[in-house]
Order: sequence, then C-alpha cells, then structure tokens
Amino acid sequence: MTNPNKKQSQIPEQRSQGRHLVFSHIRNNLQMARIDIANATGMSPATVTAITAELITAGLIEEVQRVVEPGQSKRGRPRVDLKLRGKAHIVVGMKVTAKLITAVVMDLEGNQLGKAQTTIPRRLLSREDLMKLIPELVAKAAQSANLDVSDLSAIGIGIPGTVKADTGFVDWCPLIEEQEFNLKHLLQEVLPMPCFIENDANAVAMAELWFGFGRDVPDFLVVTIEQGVGLGIVLGGKIFRGTQGFGAEFGHTKVQIEGALCRCGQRGCLEAYVADYALLREAELFSHWSDEPNTEQRLIQLYDSAKSGDLTAKSIFDRASRMFAMGLANLVNLFDPALVILAGEQMRFDYLYAQPVFDAVKESTIQRGHHAPEIRIHKWGDMMWAKGAAAYALEEVVGLSMDQLNNGETAT
Amino acid sequence: MTNPNKKQSQIPEQRSQGRHLVFSHIRNNLQMARIDIANATGMSPATVTAITAELITAGLIEEVQRVVEPGQSKRGRPRVDLKLRGKAHIVVGMKVTAKLITAVVMDLEGNQLGKAQTTIPRRLLSREDLMKLIPELVAKAAQSANLDVSDLSAIGIGIPGTVKADTGFVDWCPLIEEQEFNLKHLLQEVLPMPCFIENDANAVAMAELWFGFGRDVPDFLVVTIEQGVGLGIVLGGKIFRGTQGFGAEFGHTKVQIEGALCRCGQRGCLEAYVADYALLREAELFSHWSDEPNTEQRLIQLYDSAKSGDLTAKSIFDRASRMFAMGLANLVNLFDPALVILAGEQMRFDYLYAQPVFDAVKESTIQRGHHAPEIRIHKWGDMMWAKGAAAYALEEVVGLSMDQLNNGETAT
Amino acid sequence: MTNPNKKQSQIPEQRSQGRHLVFSHIRNNLQMARIDIANATGMSPATVTAITAELITAGLIEEVQRVVEPGQSKRGRPRVDLKLRGKAHIVVGMKVTAKLITAVVMDLEGNQLGKAQTTIPRRLLSREDLMKLIPELVAKAAQSANLDVSDLSAIGIGIPGTVKADTGFVDWCPLIEEQEFNLKHLLQEVLPMPCFIENDANAVAMAELWFGFGRDVPDFLVVTIEQGVGLGIVLGGKIFRGTQGFGAEFGHTKVQIEGALCRCGQRGCLEAYVADYALLREAELFSHWSDEPNTEQRLIQLYDSAKSGDLTAKSIFDRASRMFAMGLANLVNLFDPALVILAGEQMRFDYLYAQPVFDAVKESTIQRGHHAPEIRIHKWGDMMWAKGAAAYALEEVVGLSMDQLNNGETAT
Amino acid sequence: MTNPNKKQSQIPEQRSQGRHLVFSHIRNNLQMARIDIANATGMSPATVTAITAELITAGLIEEVQRVVEPGQSKRGRPRVDLKLRGKAHIVVGMKVTAKLITAVVMDLEGNQLGKAQTTIPRRLLSREDLMKLIPELVAKAAQSANLDVSDLSAIGIGIPGTVKADTGFVDWCPLIEEQEFNLKHLLQEVLPMPCFIENDANAVAMAELWFGFGRDVPDFLVVTIEQGVGLGIVLGGKIFRGTQGFGAEFGHTKVQIEGALCRCGQRGCLEAYVADYALLREAELFSHWSDEPNTEQRLIQLYDSAKSGDLTAKSIFDRASRMFAMGLANLVNLFDPALVILAGEQMRFDYLYAQPVFDAVKESTIQRGHHAPEIRIHKWGDMMWAKGAAAYALEEVVGLSMDQLNNGETAT
Repeated sequence: MTNPNKKQSQIPEQRSQGRHLVFSHIRNNLQMARIDIANATGMSPATVTAITAELITAGLIEEVQRVVEPGQSKRGRPRVDLKLRGKAHIVVGMKVTAKLITAVVMDLEGNQLGKAQTTIPRRLLSREDLMKLIPELVAKAAQSANLDVSDLSAIGIGIPGTVKADTGFVDWCPLIEEQEFNLKHLLQEVLPMPCFIENDANAVAMAELWFGFGRDVPDFLVVTIEQGVGLGIVLGGKIFRGTQGFGAEFGHTKVQIEGALCRCGQRGCLEAYVADYALLREAELFSHWSDEPNTEQRLIQLYDSAKSGDLTAKSIFDRASRMFAMGLANLVNLFDPALVILAGEQMRFDYLYAQPVFDAVKESTIQRGHHAPEIRIHKWGDMMWAKGAAAYALEEVVGLSMDQLNNGETAT
Repeated sequence: MTNPNKKQSQIPEQRSQGRHLVFSHIRNNLQMARIDIANATGMSPATVTAITAELITAGLIEEVQRVVEPGQSKRGRPRVDLKLRGKAHIVVGMKVTAKLITAVVMDLEGNQLGKAQTTIPRRLLSREDLMKLIPELVAKAAQSANLDVSDLSAIGIGIPGTVKADTGFVDWCPLIEEQEFNLKHLLQEVLPMPCFIENDANAVAMAELWFGFGRDVPDFLVVTIEQGVGLGIVLGGKIFRGTQGFGAEFGHTKVQIEGALCRCGQRGCLEAYVADYALLREAELFSHWSDEPNTEQRLIQLYDSAKSGDLTAKSIFDRASRMFAMGLANLVNLFDPALVILAGEQMRFDYLYAQPVFDAVKESTIQRGHHAPEIRIHKWGDMMWAKGAAAYALEEVVGLSMDQLNNGETAT
Repeated sequence: MTNPNKKQSQIPEQRSQGRHLVFSHIRNNLQMARIDIANATGMSPATVTAITAELITAGLIEEVQRVVEPGQSKRGRPRVDLKLRGKAHIVVGMKVTAKLITAVVMDLEGNQLGKAQTTIPRRLLSREDLMKLIPELVAKAAQSANLDVSDLSAIGIGIPGTVKADTGFVDWCPLIEEQEFNLKHLLQEVLPMPCFIENDANAVAMAELWFGFGRDVPDFLVVTIEQGVGLGIVLGGKIFRGTQGFGAEFGHTKVQIEGALCRCGQRGCLEAYVADYALLREAELFSHWSDEPNTEQRLIQLYDSAKSGDLTAKSIFDRASRMFAMGLANLVNLFDPALVILAGEQMRFDYLYAQPVFDAVKESTIQRGHHAPEIRIHKWGDMMWAKGAAAYALEEVVGLSMDQLNNGETAT
Repeated sequence: MTNPNKKQSQIPEQRSQGRHLVFSHIRNNLQMARIDIANATGMSPATVTAITAELITAGLIEEVQRVVEPGQSKRGRPRVDLKLRGKAHIVVGMKVTAKLITAVVMDLEGNQLGKAQTTIPRRLLSREDLMKLIPELVAKAAQSANLDVSDLSAIGIGIPGTVKADTGFVDWCPLIEEQEFNLKHLLQEVLPMPCFIENDANAVAMAELWFGFGRDVPDFLVVTIEQGVGLGIVLGGKIFRGTQGFGAEFGHTKVQIEGALCRCGQRGCLEAYVADYALLREAELFSHWSDEPNTEQRLIQLYDSAKSGDLTAKSIFDRASRMFAMGLANLVNLFDPALVILAGEQMRFDYLYAQPVFDAVKESTIQRGHHAPEIRIHKWGDMMWAKGAAAYALEEVVGLSMDQLNNGETAT
C-alpha cells in the first residue's frame, strides 16, 4: 500500500519505480531483451536503455547472449538478453525454529551456494544466545560456500511471531525468552553486514515471489502449517503486513466459538486445530500408538497410523482438515485471490493439502464459477524457511542498491 | 493494487498521479493553500501551481479567500485557498433495497441538493423494472433539486451482491430476478449520462473516503449490517475488491462449522447470525411479541423488547453480538486496520455497535497493546447508502475528467 | 418406579399385582392358555385359575377355543385359551395438534371401531374451545362407530407439552391459550365418562406397549419427531416420566452451546434442529422452492427437493440428521436400551430414520459390540397419536376395573 | 426395573420384599420403633413383628433402648427401637485408581474401622497384579482394624469403566492391561469371602443411598468428576444401570459436534471437556505455570492460578463449567430428579460445583418453577470411592443374608 499522503519527491520516485519495474521484470522472466521489457512495462525503449545501463553499472544485472534453440532462425545479429547478476549479492538466510537454526547461502539469482545449521542449546533462546549463535552460523554457512563472511551482502532472518520488518523490532516470538526488543540493532553490533528480520511466513511468501510459484503473479497468498499456521499475503507484488504491520494473523482467526485453546491464550484459533501441537495434543491421550520422544517423529507415526486406518488418528486429521478448509475459505472470501500456495518443507501431512479440503473450500466460498482460486501445493524440501529469509535479504539489499542509485542521481 | 506488469505510459501516468494527489489533498482538507499542498505531497511548488491551474481550467477546483478568524494576525496579503468546485459535477446516487429505491442528488463538495424514492412494485425486480424505475427516479431526484436531468454528470447505483464495478456487470444480486447481466449497458440505453454500478458496501466505503471518517486515512475498513453484512476495504486510498474483484465477502466468512443456514445456501456464514433476516428468523418462533407485518418495524419492536428485559429477545441479540465480535476479530487479525468504521443509517441495534463487542474483538485479536484498531460508529441517517453511490459516481466522474486532461496533454 | 416408602396394604397389593401380571401376559400374547400363564409368570396353576376366574367375571377377558392348525395333532380335548374381551372397554383416544383434533374409537383388543376429526377454529385453543370441541368430537367419533356416547368407557387425550398424567393438570401446552389448569376437571364437567390426559409422546409409548413393537419388551424408548421431538421412556413395563413427573424432555436436551433458538426460549435444543418448524425456518430463506401455504405440504415439497438433489434442501436435512444422531446417541449412552422405536405417522422424512443416522449413533455410543440397541422404525399411519391416547385410556380404565376387583375383595 | 415376565414364586417374594422394606427403613432412619415401621410401610404390626424377629435372629438388626431426651415425657414403659447390627457384616471396600488402590474397612452401620492403601507398580495393572495386590491389601486393611481376614464378610471393588455388576465381568477398564475378563472369578480363587465388582460411580451412588444424602430419597443422581466423569442413577432405591447394564455413560454424552477428542476415541464427549485430563491437556500448552510432574499437584496449581486471576487458567475452568452445566442440564431434562448430588473427595475444583453452573443448569432445563432439582454438593474426604465400594459390598452381602432367610423359609 503506498500512502498517497506520504511526502515524496516525484521525479526520483518515478525513476526509482522504473528501476524496480525493470529489475522485477528481468527477475521474473529469468532473462529478457530490452525491447521485451519496453513492451511489457509500457516504458519507452529509450528509458529502458537508460535504466538498464544504470543497473549494469551498479552490477545488479548483466548482459547475456541468448542461446538460439536448434531450428530457430538466426537472421540478423544475435539477441542480447539481460539477467540478474548472481554475484551482485550473496546473502545468508536463516530460520529459527524450536530446536535448530538453519542457514542457506544464496546469490542474487537464487542459486544455493551452501548451507549450515546449529542446535539450540535450551528450550528458549536468550538474546545472548542469538548474539553468539547467529554470527557463528553465518561463519559456518559462508565456509560451506567457500566464502568469507566479508563476501556476504546481507543476512535475512525469519522467525515466527510478530516482527516489525522495517525496523527489526521483535514484538513477540515464542522461541525467545525476552520480548519487545530490537533484534536487528542487536545483531548489527556483532555482524558487519546489514541484517533484516522478517516474520517467517512473510519470508516464505518473498521466496515464492522471487523464485517460486508467485514469480509472475502480482497478488497471491502463501499458507504454511507446521509449528503454527503462517500466512504471507502478496498484493501488487509486495508483502501486505496489514495496515499497521501486524496483520495476516491467519493462525489466530477464530473458527469456533468457545473452541480449543490456542498457544496465544485465546480460544477457537485455527492454529489450535491444525498446527503440529494441536494434532499431538489430541494424540497424546492414546498411549498405544507411540513412545517416540521426538515430536516430529511422533507426528509422522500418527500420520502413518491414520493412513493405515487407525480411526482415532484419522479422526484427528479429519477434523483438522475440516477446520483448515473453513479458515482457508474465509481467506478466499475476503481476498478472492487468483492463487493460493500451500507451502511446506515436507508436506508430510498431505491430508491438509488434499482434494477434500479444496472441495470444501470451494463449497464454502461465494462462487461465481469462473473465479475459484487456483490452489497450488509447493513442496520445497528442507530449506524453504531459510530460503525465504534469503529472498527477503535479497529484496532488501537490492532496495539499498537502488537507493544508492537514486542518491547518486539526486547528487548530480 | 497496481499491477507492475500493466502496460503504461510513464510520463502521463506521473502527471495523472500528481493530479489525483492534489485533488484528493484538497478534497480531504476541504480547502488548502498551494504551499500546504506542496508540503503535504512533497511536490515542488512549481508542479503544484501547474497542476492546480489545470484543475481550475477543468472546473474541478476553484480559488477561495481564506476567512481570517478574529484574533488571527492579518499580516501581509490575504491567503488564497483552493477548494473543490461543487458545481463541477452534480450526480445522483441510488440504493436499491428490497422494497425501495432511494436517490440523493449531490454535488462535488458533498452537498445534498435533493432526494427522492420509489417503491418496488413486486418481490423481485425484473430488468424491465430497472429500466423503467431508475430513469423515472433520476428525473424525480433532479426535480427535487430544481435541476434538469441534463445537469447531472453521472449516476451511481449501489446494490447488494456481487458486481464487477469496472464493467457494471451484475454477477448476482438477491433483489433482481435475472442474474449475470450488464446493468450498466442496460441503463446506458435509457439514460444520457454515465452510469456506474458498485456493490453497496463498497459505495459506503467510498462515501467514508470522500465525506466521512476515512477522509484522511489511507487504509480502513467499513462494515455495514442491515439486510446483509457488508464490508468495504480501503487500502492506499482505493477500494480493495479482492484480487479478482469478488473479495470482501465478510458476510460469508464462516464463524461456525455446521452452523446456521445462510441466504447463500452455505452454513455458518456470519450473515446467518447477524443480518436482519437472521434476527427475525429466530424471533418468528415467538408469536407474542409482534403482529407487525413490516419487517423493519418488527425488528425495532424486537430490539425494544430486548432492551425492556425480554430474555428471548435479548438472547437473539446477544448471540448475534458474540458472532459479530468473532467475525470482526478475524478481520482485525488479517488486516490490522488502524480504523474500523461501523456505518449504518439508523444504528438502531446498538447492541452490535457496543462496548462489549469491542471488548470481545480486542480479546480475540493478537494484541501487542499499541495497535488495537480504533472502532468508530458512523450514524449516517437515512441516505447513507444513496450517498455512498453518489460518492462512487463522483470518484468515477472525476476520474473521467482527469482522463480528459491526460488525453488533452497527450494531444499537445 | 415404585416408591418403597409408599404406604400400602400388602395382601391386596399382591393379588392386584398378580391380576395385572396375568392381564398383561394375555394382552402381550394375544391369547394364552392358563398353564402357559403359570409357566411364564411363575405363579401356581391354582392362583392363575383363581385370578383368571375373577377377570372373566369382571368381563375383562374371555375364553376362546384354540384353532388347531392343519397338520397339528388333535389328541385329547381342545385347548382353551384366554384373550382380552374387546367389548369390555371401548374408548376414544384423541390427539390435539395445531390445526386439528383427531379421534379414534378403539376396543380393549385394539380394534379400531371408528374415527373422526375436527378443525381448530383459531391459532390457539381457549379452554372454552376445548370444552365445546372435545364433547362434540366424542359424539362424532361414537357415531362413526355406530355407538352411543354412553357405550364409551373412557376418553384419553394426548397433548404436546408438560402434563401431570396422574391428575390431568396441564402445566404448559403450546396449543392452548391458558396454561396451568386442570384439563381433566374441566372435561369431567361436560363428559360423562372418565377422562385421562397424557403427554402425546408418552401416549404413543403406551400404544407401543399395548399394540406395537414394545408388546413383549419391558424397557424401551419411543422417539417421535413432528411439531416437536417427543420421547416416551418405558422402564419395567411402565412409562417413566422422570422422578418428579417432568422428565423425558428429549427435545430440549442441548446439542450445541450457543446453538439455534428453540420454541422454549432456550438455545441449542435438539428440537431447534430437527422439528418441523426448525426445518421450515431454514427453508423459508429460499423463496424459489415453494409458495405452498400449508406447512405440512411445504415440508413434503422440501423433502422432495432434497431427494431430487437440491443442495440447500439436502443441507437442511443433513444437519438435522447429524444433530438427531447426536441426541439419540446421548439417550443410548444413558439408558442403554435394548430397543429404540422411532415412531411416526408418515415417516415422510426418512432421512432421520435412516442407516447413516443409525451408524452415527453407533459411532457415538460406548460400544462393547454386543449391546448396540435395536432401532426399529414404526410407521403407524395417520392415527398414531390418537391410538396412543386410546391406549392410555385403556391402561387407565383397566386399572380402574382392577381397583374395583380389589375393593370388592377387601369388602368381603 | 422389575421384569414383569420374570418367573417368580409369589409368596416368598412378598416376604422377601417385606424384609428388604423393613431393613431399608431401619437403615435410612438409623433407628426406628416397630409401630413406626408399620406406619411407614403400610404393613400390619403383626407382619412387622414377624419380620423383625427374623432379622434379629439372622443377626442383621438388634434392639436398642430409645434414649429419652431431657424434657420429653417418659410416660409408660421405655420405647424400644431397632437398628442395624454393625457387627453383622464387616466388609472391605476398595477403589482402584491410576496410581493407588485404597481400601476402607466398614461395618454394617457404616462405621469406618480401618483403612489401607497400596501403590500400583506400573502404568497399567495386569491380572496378576490384581490377584497379588488385592489380597495383600485386604490383609493390610483387616490388620488396620485389628481384625482377621476371616472376620470379613465380603469385599467390594469399584473400578472405572464398564462392569457387569451382577457377574463381576469387566468389559473395559482403562487401568487394566487385559480387558473382557471376569475379575470376580479371578479374585474368588485367592480370597475366601464373596467379592463384588461395581463401576466406581455406581458404588458412590450406593454409598449415598446407604450413608449419604440419598438415605431417604428413592430417586436421585450422583455425579463425580475426577479422572473421568461418573454418574450413578438411583431409581426406586436401586442403581439403574441402563436396561442392558451399560447405561449411565454420562461422561460420554456428546456436548459438541466435531468437538474435543475423548479418551474413548469419540469426539465431543462431556469428559473431553471437564475431566482432569481435559483440563491438563489445555494447560500443558503453557509452560510458565508449572514444572510440577505430579498431575494432581499440577491441577491444584492450575486452579490456584485461575483463582489468582490468570486469564488462561480461568478460561480453562470457565469452558469446563459451561460444558458441565450443559451436560448436567441434559440429565435434568431427561430424569427430572428431585435431587442431584455432586460428590467428590476433595471438591478442589469448586468452579464446577458452583452457583454459576447451577444457574446455567436452571436456564437450560424446561422450567415449571416448582420442580427445579435440588443440587447438593457432598465433599466426602479421601475415602469416598472406597466407601462406595464398601456400601456396595454391604448391599450385596445383606442380599445374600436375606436369600438365606428365604431359602430357610422355603425349606420349612
């Protein structure tokens, strides 16, 4: 949402908008000729030429010879495309979970250059832990990619909870002892490169926008279900965080009056029916199915039981499905998205990402036939969350590069 | 949502954006000096001067001497402010309800110049009825304002249901026999001025933006409860209709699995608990409280009974309140708005717009203390819906005037 | 429930118990030889002979030659059976509904000798109406059977609501204007024979006991669904009315917190989901399916729509089924009956009396495999309710005959 | 429920009924003169004299001089009352819980002579454990009362789950590894005196009947809430176990469709909202309030938190209260009892046994003003369950004594 009342200098903003537009077109299309950029954006070819020159100078994009496919005619001179310059920015993305911090090293083109992880030593992280573990993991991640820490342009960190992404202030995170502190400021004391903090589901939405199913879609929703229920809303190619920055609390929309108790202390939250803890809480009544101490493994066993026909296990997943469909339908009723992405690392509980749920969503939304949202399932593998944080870091560090271009221009 | 992929000509768009920005600043502030516009928008004084000259020439705004309040110093020359020029556009706004069509005549400054209404002759309107009744009502409304129909710039029509505002196509409207037809095209055959069709709740949101509590707020929600439950979402100063144009279906978000049956045929919709029909459906079990045939009057009697201590009547409103709070909390959890406006003509059922509901919303949203939305109640009086439609007509007709300016500019 | 503290004279009571035992054995077996009665009751043949002699003298039973089936040996003298003597008592049973009072004339053997009905002239009956309509209908019913009113031994009247069967006091009846009055006393002023008033569902249970599926079953439940939801509980061959006489309010057991509003003013009652009014209340949202003014006919049309695939109509019946299954399961969990009879006049809404409901009941009761109750459907045809009232009258009038025998005996 | 079809010899049965009647009158009144017994039962003084002579000979009752209160006149000869003879039968009552088996030694007058307990060595008891632990505990209990095991007339054992009390067959008990076996037969192999097995809530109801609030009330309900939710139904002075012996499953009546998962594998059971495990399951989401490993202690801490104003803890108890009220109201609607006893050892969670719950029950039952049940809270202290089992043993062993009298009589 751009605030029409915000003070702004018009000319630089226009140029800045143009640069972002060109950059995102190139990114979304992987590589693209100048004339196609002009056609797609409606800019004049001259403007496109000027902007791409700036971006090349800034090192963000580079020219590349288009490979002519066999059978294509090669009349005239070879076409030159533009693509992002991977080396322009190499970042580390991190995800903090209850037990681990995982990190991935990624370049501007989305290539994964390395990865690393570290175990969390206690139940809740202290701020001291964060100041120690994160720099260590940055070093370890850089090493895994045969890089120096000084080669890294930025760090992105995704955490569950409520985060002010613009300032790096953590309002509430279930994994950290202290609350209401500025994690970005803290980390900038011990890390030499810019740090960016974002809510983990928003970070995944950013990854969908940069590298995933949302690449050429201006508006879409990303839903994740693991420890909690996450939602990333992308409107107009931007993360929509709610008008005050704390929206998209999908996991805490209520699906039942006087309902199940949620970790947030309220009743009837969607999360209290579909998150990992909600499934396990019900399963724990029944001792026969597992002595497995690892909750991840217990969940997998529970799901296997359901698939093998255990009626109680099935009942647990069935109810979660129905509630999930109800919550998802509410999102569709409000946002009417063309695309909903259900993103996960393993998609182990495919009951939630299944046709009966999609059918129930359809039956619970105001239907005009032609506009049911496409629901796509994106199985990322084990680095989804960290890649999301990396995408967020790239988005921000490219923004900084653009700002420098603007400032340079203003200076002249 | 601006689509970054949309083809566009950059230079005219910038100028066009500038004009809209200046216009909306003047509108929101009622009257404003050029220098204050420059300060507020960040534009250069020269640009502001150029744009305001264009808008004056186009007749949309005019200069006005600022009245000096007693006691203020009058050093230097008198200040000149700019304000909208009321006569620039006079429009009729109409609301179609189950029994009536109401109309209001309004100028660009929001002054109400006249009003009229007509009774709907049967249970469901036919397309023929619309083509007959609406032009008649336009004439009647113009006459009430001592105007000719030819003095009117545009007609805005608000209807419940699902409408494609950009084309005037009605997907579904509970009050009309036929469905899926283009109401705008139909009316343009019998009316000489542009017609604009909008969902009624969106139209009310537009009225809040132009004349109401949303005047200086870029992002807010407007909720209405009468025949149904309406929601208008304003993001970045624009109506957000969902990414495919059919969102904001707040009345059909689900608050109860296996819940009450809604007019839409689905179960558990918020509307099925709080709309007029939902309240009356429960009350009709009890014959003792009313033989009143008019549903409006029955509702008022029911509410009076509740206030007088009738336990059953109270139970009807109490449950509606709880469900409304749950639905509203879900909106707040997703959109995190700074402002929610509860808008109504009579606000007769103040149980829904009352502190216990607001408290319940607060208890059902993820709270960080500092960001609870302000909830404001806007009691419009009897022309809210028609004024909303008028505001929508003004928004659109001003857009057309701006487009003419752009086209003129392109021509030079 | 017999109260062990009740003052009683032991010897007569024993003889009285013996008479009732012999009588009910003959009734349940239609006809029976003395020796078989002795075997079945454990009484000595001499006692059986003495008691049957008394009953024959009193005219309640009579001897009948047993028909020898072809192929059976006819050695020795022909067997003499005992059977009830139909003419011993001829009664009228009546059911009061919202629109009609129906009456049936029945003899002690359960033969239907005549029937009649009368229309209720206004929405609610007054006491004056009852005092006028009921005697008129008694006369009309007697005439239909070619009998004089003086041939009738008793009148039984079944009404919905809360009735003290032992005194004939009506605590609450939804069909009558006045409440809390003694209907029996009122009627005894205008009718020459004993009148007995009973809750209509209890009366149906009595009919099941005398003539229906409960004939040889000491403990069973009878459920009826029409205007409301009725329950008759038979324990030890007697109607169980709750320990204070107002139990068996099955229709007002709660199946949903904050649920649908019931005619009783409370929320979440089973009746508010499954009774006729509950189905119609939902259907009335949708005008397209019927303009039929008769509610009975509307319901039939609604059910036809559901069967023809109308999704909304189907949804109405589906939810009712689920709630009915839940309520029924609660009964089974508490009473663990061997037999549940679902009794109705038309059984038109067989969705409620269908396998999916029975399966859901089974899944919602504590199962030990061997004790799931048998659920039987009893389609009575159009005089079920009146026959119930007749059965109640027979039960009571036979009781009076027995008391006379006792008094005679005491006198000697 | 007496089965009217049951074969029986009439004369002895009458005498047997008379004996039970006299015995229960004496028990309920603690002590009583013969003439008062005759008045109360309606028997002739001669019959009472004959029966009391038999009971004195059998040692079940004894004469006692009535103490003349100061101020009472002492005209004529001193009054002789009859009372139970405590030494007639000394029994042990036992309750099996998840962690302990508790035992109490009690005489026929209800005097507690001793007590003992033993710890359960593992999570689930095996049949071998039972055969070893129970005899050991019998010996220990006898010793605590300075008695020999041979002084004991009978053992009563109360267990949760589904038990056929007449045969001692255990269908299902959550505390024992094996299911579907005859516990009575097993124990009779290792114990010299009669053993009686009963569902624990029924046993508590028996204690209310013998020694508690049900002493002079023919019909009442007893509700217990601890590990599960128990119900004992007393009708006509007898435990009503459902017509097939598995009723009174109050804890598994459903209060919510698609509700919380219960230990029984079904959803929406009352127990899944109010039993200890249900409260703890919700509390376990929140780590801050307790690290206490003992679940009993955790619950107490949780309750203390609620009372101190912790909103989450309060929410846990509040919802349980609402659901409990709903379940209780359903019982009242069906059984219309004059008396409901809420029985517990500690009544630690007095939120469930509190005025708001009683008010909600009243609001959810069909009210005719005059018949709301009395709800009484019975705080037994720590031996309630074992005393219940003892009461059951006394009931059964007295029955055996009576049978011997009958047999003796038949012999003559």
